[in-house]
Amino acid sequence: MEFWTRSIYSDGTGAFVSNPLPALGEEVVIRVRCFADAPVEGVFLRQMVNGGEKWVQMEKESVSGPLQYYAAKITVNEPRCCYHFAFAGTDSIVFYNQQGTSLTLTDDSHDFVLLADYRKPDWVDGAVFYQIFPERFANGREELTPSDGQYTYRGHSTIVRESWSDTPLSVEEAAGMEFFGGDLYGIIDKIPYLKDLGVTAIYLNPVFTSYSTHKYDCNDYEHVDIHFGGDEALAALSDALHAEGMKLILDISINHTGIEHKWVKEGKPFYFRKEDGSLEGWWGVETLPVLDYRNEELRDLVYRGKDAVLRKWLRPPYNIDGWRFDVADVFAKHDDVQLADALWPEICAAIREEKPDALIIGEHWADCGKYLQGDLWNTPMNYYGFGRVIRQFAGLEDLFLERNPGFAGVHYQMQAQDVVRRTEDHYSVIPQAVADCQMNLFDSHDVPRLHNCGPIREAQWKMAVCAQLLWTGIPCIYYGDEVAIDGYPETDAGFRYPMPWGHFSERGERHLEIIRTMTHLRRTHPAFAGGGRMVLLAEGRILVIARFCGDEVYTGVLSMEDEEKVITLPLSLVGKIEPAEEKDVFGTHLDGQCTDGGYELKVPPCASLLFACR
Amino acid sequence: MEFWTRSIYSDGTGAFVSNPLPALGEEVVIRVRCFADAPVEGVFLRQMVNGGEKWVQMEKESVSGPLQYYAAKITVNEPRCCYHFAFAGTDSIVFYNQQGTSLTLTDDSHDFVLLADYRKPDWVDGAVFYQIFPERFANGREELTPSDGQYTYRGHSTIVRESWSDTPLSVEEAAGMEFFGGDLYGIIDKIPYLKDLGVTAIYLNPVFTSYSTHKYDCNDYEHVDIHFGGDEALAALSDALHAEGMKLILDISINHTGIEHKWVKEGKPFYFRKEDGSLEGWWGVETLPVLDYRNEELRDLVYRGKDAVLRKWLRPPYNIDGWRFDVADVFAKHDDVQLADALWPEICAAIREEKPDALIIGEHWADCGKYLQGDLWNTPMNYYGFGRVIRQFAGLEDLFLERNPGFAGVHYQMQAQDVVRRTEDHYSVIPQAVADCQMNLFDSHDVPRLHNCGPIREAQWKMAVCAQLLWTGIPCIYYGDEVAIDGYPETDAGFRYPMPWGHFSERGERHLEIIRTMTHLRRTHPAFAGGGRMVLLAEGRILVIARFCGDEVYTGVLSMEDEEKVITLPLSLVGKIEPAEEKDVFGTHLDGQCTDGGYELKVPPCASLLFACR
Repeated sequence: MEFWTRSIYSDGTGAFVSNPLPALGEEVVIRVRCFADAPVEGVFLRQMVNGGEKWVQMEKESVSGPLQYYAAKITVNEPRCCYHFAFAGTDSIVFYNQQGTSLTLTDDSHDFVLLADYRKPDWVDGAVFYQIFPERFANGREELTPSDGQYTYRGHSTIVRESWSDTPLSVEEAAGMEFFGGDLYGIIDKIPYLKDLGVTAIYLNPVFTSYSTHKYDCNDYEHVDIHFGGDEALAALSDALHAEGMKLILDISINHTGIEHKWVKEGKPFYFRKEDGSLEGWWGVETLPVLDYRNEELRDLVYRGKDAVLRKWLRPPYNIDGWRFDVADVFAKHDDVQLADALWPEICAAIREEKPDALIIGEHWADCGKYLQGDLWNTPMNYYGFGRVIRQFAGLEDLFLERNPGFAGVHYQMQAQDVVRRTEDHYSVIPQAVADCQMNLFDSHDVPRLHNCGPIREAQWKMAVCAQLLWTGIPCIYYGDEVAIDGYPETDAGFRYPMPWGHFSERGERHLEIIRTMTHLRRTHPAFAGGGRMVLLAEGRILVIARFCGDEVYTGVLSMEDEEKVITLPLSLVGKIEPAEEKDVFGTHLDGQCTDGGYELKVPPCASLLFACR
Repeated sequence: MEFWTRSIYSDGTGAFVSNPLPALGEEVVIRVRCFADAPVEGVFLRQMVNGGEKWVQMEKESVSGPLQYYAAKITVNEPRCCYHFAFAGTDSIVFYNQQGTSLTLTDDSHDFVLLADYRKPDWVDGAVFYQIFPERFANGREELTPSDGQYTYRGHSTIVRESWSDTPLSVEEAAGMEFFGGDLYGIIDKIPYLKDLGVTAIYLNPVFTSYSTHKYDCNDYEHVDIHFGGDEALAALSDALHAEGMKLILDISINHTGIEHKWVKEGKPFYFRKEDGSLEGWWGVETLPVLDYRNEELRDLVYRGKDAVLRKWLRPPYNIDGWRFDVADVFAKHDDVQLADALWPEICAAIREEKPDALIIGEHWADCGKYLQGDLWNTPMNYYGFGRVIRQFAGLEDLFLERNPGFAGVHYQMQAQDVVRRTEDHYSVIPQAVADCQMNLFDSHDVPRLHNCGPIREAQWKMAVCAQLLWTGIPCIYYGDEVAIDGYPETDAGFRYPMPWGHFSERGERHLEIIRTMTHLRRTHPAFAGGGRMVLLAEGRILVIARFCGDEVYTGVLSMEDEEKVITLPLSLVGKIEPAEEKDVFGTHLDGQCTDGGYELKVPPCASLLFACR
């Protein structure tokens, strides 16, 4: 397709929709742009109205630099108001939807979507998440730390480490019984640190009563573990965070409990193995019995009743701001009965009834577009559309596939075009209001820390952080990444190291600076806080993405090439000519010049450059 | 991607699934193939099991020519059993789903899908449809023909034409009041003709009581129009067809009635205009009042009650074999309330309760994948995935878009790759069991006959007929096309000409021969009756498609190029080397030779070649 077609752009942000969160029946103005000198005879918007196609001719609106904006007024006629565009030339029609441009008619699955009467959590634009594994973050009150041998669980006894030194994997750690003493008061103590880092929201791994360090094997959803400080500590943490304008998300598995959960003793409904009548464990793990939601009482207890677990913690004095659902991908899916499609709408509605702008995060590692249409989750743990992609682009094997021995030996060098395709697979089927909420992470309690993985050098890690800015959604920092925390990639223990308070390494200080630059840009610049996004170039292993809002345009160049490359940036596509300054946001000198074809830039080997444009 | 990746193939037919229509819980063997000498280390099948990914390594099964088959046994664990494949090499994994191959992970929307406990109408494989506009087909009983001036409706009086000569558009014809006397007895008389043509199923435009010729403005769903012979004639037609092993589909609009419908008089629920309280008409046409399905009684009358309209005609003595729903795309979608998603499942279930292998056809011209997942329609009028594509490839403007003046002046020359993409948009998101039911038409009562459209010559028309064989689904012949019936493209009247019985033109005789060749192949050769399908080549305006089943492979070459071209056919992809005979099925000499790269074939300008391969 001709070059001008690449200048076609629209999205669901305020720059292209007069009200991105309209009410049903509201009139909104939709905009699209392309080069003012493009060979375009007419621009049309296609909306579906009661099942029929409605084509509206768009009017020329304003011109900004080389770009002509077209606008049309439409009525948000249905809960999902879907539309795409067509540019009529003399010898072709160029169709444009969330997947890009095409010379053939497009199907409707990639339409732009406005959600009517949708309540997007009002705090996500510009937000920065920080994920904390509470047992390993900060020890606020020594007296809360369990004592050696205090509990015996799954054949292992509590062990307490006295120093915050690096730890190799012990048997007790593997069993989740090796404690360092982290608690919620420790997090309160570190709020100034987090604020300074630019964090605006905390996502905590489970805090409810449990013998283990990770607490995914819960004994009691009604109380925060006493070694974390109990319910009182959670209320205090919540108050302290909210006083600083920060948000708090808790993690829960409502799919399974721990084997010691009181519901097991009380005979609440679980699945039982047909062979021997024993409790069926999640993923075959006997200590994680799976709840059976065919039971109505269970639904009441978990989400439906007035004081249901999922409701209680959203209310005073805890006031949490949302839930992260563990193993949400498999929740309520069972050989005997498939209940997920019935339960999720009820669960999500219950949460939003309690707190309309709560954030709902589902753990899902793969394609989950059907959960991201506005009515269910706000976001998955976005491995699929971000983390898996970026880690592979950085040089690792795919996170999920590498678990299969048959794929483990395959070394594929991911190309920039692959990154574009993978990202599109996720983002092109979700509404903008949902895209803005995507929680973009590349590390977590379940994922080897990127910077501790063999082939990863600092440059690739920096690329991943830059990518968090360049993708639509909310960057999520996994505690410790910002100080290059030590560890190893082979087992969970290796990426659940305790925070090295007081002795950050030199590399850690460099990480901190990169993260602070990222979070500052994210929080203060509309281009990143809720702006548009366009791929300017995807050649070999160099990916260039622009983020923009109004006149502000930032360009990010992510090169995973081993050698210096010269690229030509078509900045005119975003109405610009060249970098606004001689150095990028990290202080790297930009070695380039304007040419007829665009801005010609020398890209050092394996480099990430990020700069404003003029 | 490397050439060998193009040899990867699977589908949902019996050649690749041990039972394409399995029961829930059944074990099936799934197969996939690729070149035996491909650099493949392992082949894997990915199935979703209770929300989790399950990768199964496939075993080498048989070798057939250059092709290695791999097989794995899986359990049909859910109502939709979804899977795709991955081929692990040393430096890449090739993923393969219904959209084809990819070096990146794929989302799940194009997975192969087995529908558990799905009842595919058992008569569709090898079926050939023939669409009849009853008033214009054959006059079986002169005495049934209405008389001049018998009715006055919408300000026009019945006019009867005495001869079956060509007719220009008259005012009465535009109003649907110009009669030629066609009736259902006429169709009975012509059953031998239809059998000889290779037809196995009839789709009739509406036959219920109405003043107009087209009868979409129905007065009474309970009775067949007396001028078509009444209920008795329908029963007789049904019996006569079934006696010959043929099927009968009726057409109905349950979205709107005619203004003279008894339900209007009886005060049944319709939509009313807010402005003046008058009846709201479909598409603004006052004489087509729209039914309001918020009313429960209406649902009973139409589909829910024991003797509901949609049930009654499926039962003796009428025994029809399915329904075609007029304006199904907009049915029950209204500014006031969106009921389509609630009603269609009930309607389709009611029909299948009455007759499990009834065929349900929805009128839809655009993307309707969501209706084609097994639970709702079996097929749309397949304009979207066939008719619109083929007409545009033949040289016309897109059927739907050309209605928009903004697009009318755009002359795009559709490329073979565009045809592939458009076809994939439709077929890659539907299960094979549904794909097999697609009703592939390029003409209808709503569409100018291809052979009467300006730029279309006989060669392009032949291409369209060949395409009906080369697409998955059921060819549908619009009455008269097979004899090159006269007419003009500008108005409906131009493509609703009466059949020229007794004086078929020379061109008509040539059409007949082409159609007979098509229907014979469709009915007698498994490659076409329910076989697989692979695009072998899409270059410029030449599209080459193979259809195959077991050892039988047919290749169709469709060239819309103005000049002779030499192409190289990679027949090895389907395990073959060259055409089996020197001439194609139409008697055209095949001018080609085997080369290292494949079979080199001279393709005459604008030609369609169709031949078996060995």
